[in-house]
Amino acid sequence: MYISGVGKTKFGVLQEGLHELAYAAAVHALRDAGISPKELDAVYTSNFIGGPDAKQLHLNSVLVSLLQCEGIPAFRNETACASGGTAVFQAVHSQYSNILVVGVEKMTSASGKENGMTIGFAGDRLLDQEEGLIFPASYALIAQQHMLKYGTTLEDLALVSLKNHENALLNPTAHFAHKKVTLEDIKNSEVVSSPLRLFDCSPISDGAAAIVLTKKRNGDRDIQVAASSVATDSISLVQRKSLTSFEATKKAAKEAYIQAKIKPQQLDVLEVHDCFTIAELVAMEDLGLCKPGESKEWVRAGKTKIEGELPINPDGGLKADGHPIGATGVAQLAELTMQLRGEAGKRQVKGAEVGLAQNVGGVGGTAAIHILRK
Amino acid sequence: MYISGVGKTKFGVLQEGLHELAYAAAVHALRDAGISPKELDAVYTSNFIGGPDAKQLHLNSVLVSLLQCEGIPAFRNETACASGGTAVFQAVHSQYSNILVVGVEKMTSASGKENGMTIGFAGDRLLDQEEGLIFPASYALIAQQHMLKYGTTLEDLALVSLKNHENALLNPTAHFAHKKVTLEDIKNSEVVSSPLRLFDCSPISDGAAAIVLTKKRNGDRDIQVAASSVATDSISLVQRKSLTSFEATKKAAKEAYIQAKIKPQQLDVLEVHDCFTIAELVAMEDLGLCKPGESKEWVRAGKTKIEGELPINPDGGLKADGHPIGATGVAQLAELTMQLRGEAGKRQVKGAEVGLAQNVGGVGGTAAIHILRK
Repeated sequence: MYISGVGKTKFGVLQEGLHELAYAAAVHALRDAGISPKELDAVYTSNFIGGPDAKQLHLNSVLVSLLQCEGIPAFRNETACASGGTAVFQAVHSQYSNILVVGVEKMTSASGKENGMTIGFAGDRLLDQEEGLIFPASYALIAQQHMLKYGTTLEDLALVSLKNHENALLNPTAHFAHKKVTLEDIKNSEVVSSPLRLFDCSPISDGAAAIVLTKKRNGDRDIQVAASSVATDSISLVQRKSLTSFEATKKAAKEAYIQAKIKPQQLDVLEVHDCFTIAELVAMEDLGLCKPGESKEWVRAGKTKIEGELPINPDGGLKADGHPIGATGVAQLAELTMQLRGEAGKRQVKGAEVGLAQNVGGVGGTAAIHILRK
Repeated sequence: MYISGVGKTKFGVLQEGLHELAYAAAVHALRDAGISPKELDAVYTSNFIGGPDAKQLHLNSVLVSLLQCEGIPAFRNETACASGGTAVFQAVHSQYSNILVVGVEKMTSASGKENGMTIGFAGDRLLDQEEGLIFPASYALIAQQHMLKYGTTLEDLALVSLKNHENALLNPTAHFAHKKVTLEDIKNSEVVSSPLRLFDCSPISDGAAAIVLTKKRNGDRDIQVAASSVATDSISLVQRKSLTSFEATKKAAKEAYIQAKIKPQQLDVLEVHDCFTIAELVAMEDLGLCKPGESKEWVRAGKTKIEGELPINPDGGLKADGHPIGATGVAQLAELTMQLRGEAGKRQVKGAEVGLAQNVGGVGGTAAIHILRK
């Protein structure tokens, strides 16, 4: 399967609603692929909560209506923050030849309280959240354990945030495309859940992203999907053996490397699920880029910067590109496609030929891994 | 692909929550198939709204946790009231060999107002609902048009309701398993949206249903999935050419008959999506059982009763078995499997060898068709 078209709206606090965002990203991707909606034989949509403004579920039917390609099979997939990755997985492994995948989320029209509530639906309601383990607290626990076990510091987390904010300044569609952030800003930001500060957390964003998948390569700009895997883990942290790694990521990654017949060392660029800064460090270790506990050394040495040895999140990641839940996993693949095509503008990773995207749902309850090749 | 196990909870106003219902149906289906959760290589969940009591999305991770089969790929699918049918479709067409599909919905813990609101998310919010076309009104419009065009009467609708309530009396897990309903009760029930009365509408139900799909036939009780198709239509009624038929049903059915290499006349039993009584009549016509406008003749002649020529909804249908949204499409297939196995007890359709299930989302925005063969 090949990615032959990509589209992404601006991520951020936007005026547009769910319908407009989904439509804009879809049309952008179709134009980029050079195909019309009538040529599609399936549509997959990825969305977490359907609202709160539109209060519209059944988005598969909405999308075929907007694109006037009624009739063809269409689906809506939800696996929390991994919705985008699992939607692409299902499309890649489907029987169809020309597929549109659209991820979309509208979040900023809800109050903070409403968002806190609905985002909670992605985690474990019975055990974790009853004990106060909402998302920032869960990732704070992971950060604490990582610090205790490996000597990771607050400064290391801040360096991840700084890199991603610097990358976002080079990405016109990023949520924080125009927000210059210093290390001091990050270190002095308010504590959300110790040790995580505001700038360790990804923002509440609106946005949409879309890709067109085709079974045949149609041109030089098409990028091959060399691997596509999904794995799960328990919804609750209580059932986990370790808090410093995600079994779902490790399992899906192992399978993806086999599918693509590559080793982690052959990757040129990555998009990882940095919903909190600590998650980027854990991802680096789970994906086998470095040994457990070594991610901090890489960050200190600047290895993961755009000009570094192995750039991670050149678009700014969830931290600074933004995190419109259903769109995130699709946007990661749009970014990798642009990188491998050499069309990533000021944030272009030089000579990138192989890229990996890791998309996580909940606190590691679901992981989707894709490897793309030029 | 074969259905090797089925499970269904009681449908109705239940004490159990989302987790317990999903777990109960899943365990029931696994036991029936004689396989353990560890032998599964994928789980598909089907659910519309995730709440309102549990307020839990990301149900794929929840299910693998409950069944202690963490690791394997798992998904959640939502296409309004067709969620069950499209989840089964995705499972049938997947790369996996041993698959569990679990459909679940918890609805009765919400207030009537809340339910009215959230069920609306399945229809078109921009055009239809702004004009008052909530679900009962949309199907009332369809009934009005059917009456005008074909001379269908209030009595015909009442006969559909009566048959389905009579069938439910023979189905211990039906929502209305113990409610004796007379033609007078139906005709005298209050008008919800003219011409539809209370007894023309399916109820608000809790419940879950599950099936186990296996690539190989393991025994005599396994039932073949001879066809599995999905089609879509516009989300809004404004864009439809006709109100007396659903293009999505017609398109998916046409494809399903080709896949199964049969004609409608070869069917022995059907489960159709009678969310409102008029929908059963429209389904009979769209599925090619009879000509447009002729369904009323069949109902008047009693052809669709369990002892009739072509029994429809022997379990009571959405009308009287109940309609826990995400569970409905899966329950239809559980019922057909029991019928084709000859295990349907008092409601057994004699000698049934080929069955068809039609599951609809919204007001015909999505349709999923499955044909099962002994």
